[in-house]
Amino acid sequence: MHHNTYQQEDKLLLAVDCIIFGFDKKGLKILLVKRNFEPEKGKWSLIGGFLKKDENLDEAATRVLHTLTGLKDIYMEQLYAYSKIDRDPAERTISVAYFALIDVASHQFEGLQDEDAHWFDLKKAPDLIFDHNEMVQKALARLRRRALNWPIGFELLPEKFTMRQLQALYESILDKRLDKRNFINKINAMDVLEKLDEKDMSSSRKGSFLYRFDADKYHVKVKEGFSFRI
Amino acid sequence: MHHNTYQQEDKLLLAVDCIIFGFDKKGLKILLVKRNFEPEKGKWSLIGGFLKKDENLDEAATRVLHTLTGLKDIYMEQLYAYSKIDRDPAERTISVAYFALIDVASHQFEGLQDEDAHWFDLKKAPDLIFDHNEMVQKALARLRRRALNWPIGFELLPEKFTMRQLQALYESILDKRLDKRNFINKINAMDVLEKLDEKDMSSSRKGSFLYRFDADKYHVKVKEGFSFRI
Repeated sequence: MHHNTYQQEDKLLLAVDCIIFGFDKKGLKILLVKRNFEPEKGKWSLIGGFLKKDENLDEAATRVLHTLTGLKDIYMEQLYAYSKIDRDPAERTISVAYFALIDVASHQFEGLQDEDAHWFDLKKAPDLIFDHNEMVQKALARLRRRALNWPIGFELLPEKFTMRQLQALYESILDKRLDKRNFINKINAMDVLEKLDEKDMSSSRKGSFLYRFDADKYHVKVKEGFSFRI
Repeated sequence: MHHNTYQQEDKLLLAVDCIIFGFDKKGLKILLVKRNFEPEKGKWSLIGGFLKKDENLDEAATRVLHTLTGLKDIYMEQLYAYSKIDRDPAERTISVAYFALIDVASHQFEGLQDEDAHWFDLKKAPDLIFDHNEMVQKALARLRRRALNWPIGFELLPEKFTMRQLQALYESILDKRLDKRNFINKINAMDVLEKLDEKDMSSSRKGSFLYRFDADKYHVKVKEGFSFRI
């Protein structure tokens, strides 16, 4: 910066808040926690915490998630910094929001570490404190844009999945029904899946072929820029 | 957040740094300023400043840009928060980067307010202080992704422009030559331009038709999601 002038009183608190989306084949979920202190005690909140002296923002987000859920090695992405002056009535705090997508079934939760934390169906999630509703909406918008511009799924699906599971994931994220044949054609045209010689026999007598992402093809496409419309 | 514990010493400085891209028909430029204080005095820097008590981050970015350039009413977008612990060796500072795109010709600069500020061709820009090079690369990557996913141009082109000017803009952003016929076909297929009954006579004897964005069509497309590949 150009003019190196600041007042000691310009210093302020920085927090991270984490929007944790989960997918469990029935739809999108969100991890929320009941706030146990004032202001807004008893209301629901994203999980979050203050940035400490010895960590950067990514590390703070990782720590917050791990402390609450026991989850490690989750890819989190920085979303946006929220800075409205009175967003936290207790004291001015800038919050940097992070979001993550996890496959609820395949991650071994050691049980939520915090008895006040719960998964909610996204559509039935309660009203949140401060500007947390706005954070969730922005994360959801980014997730949808992502889904429209390149295939997500690596993070949310088991390694092998059926076309039906992939479609259910897209339908959850985009919040609309998709035509099955049209969906399959578009996915195939993308040419990033490998069809396996195995079937999932749990859903029907004939069974459904399993697929997995072809990581090499996928990364080439990501570099080239995807054109992917559902 | 869940546990309301922080130390007074966790408070820190927040800055904004602004990546100002300009387009002047010869290519992309970037606005930089020579730093006039230690550390790294004499090196080139993005324009920036500290967040003040009475403003949010958007307001801080707007103020910084206005103070240095006299520019107002420029659309700036928040890019990313940079938080490496020792990024500023003088004192821990988190910086939230913003970026903007401006049409150098059509904005009336009152002259750069600061004698140490200069426009550089992006390709000939000097090495920058701290993590500012990283900020520029991230802004450029977002600009390119934008350009590939929906038409930019509103902000960078005069109201009426030729197809050649639009192509030059895309070539600057994507940093590659584009085939003229292919470009025109793709732009036309997008159906967001209005062809005018006027010609720009400055470039050739026959002249070149002028176009403008059809704002109604454009906004409908943005809502639907663009599929636009150059």
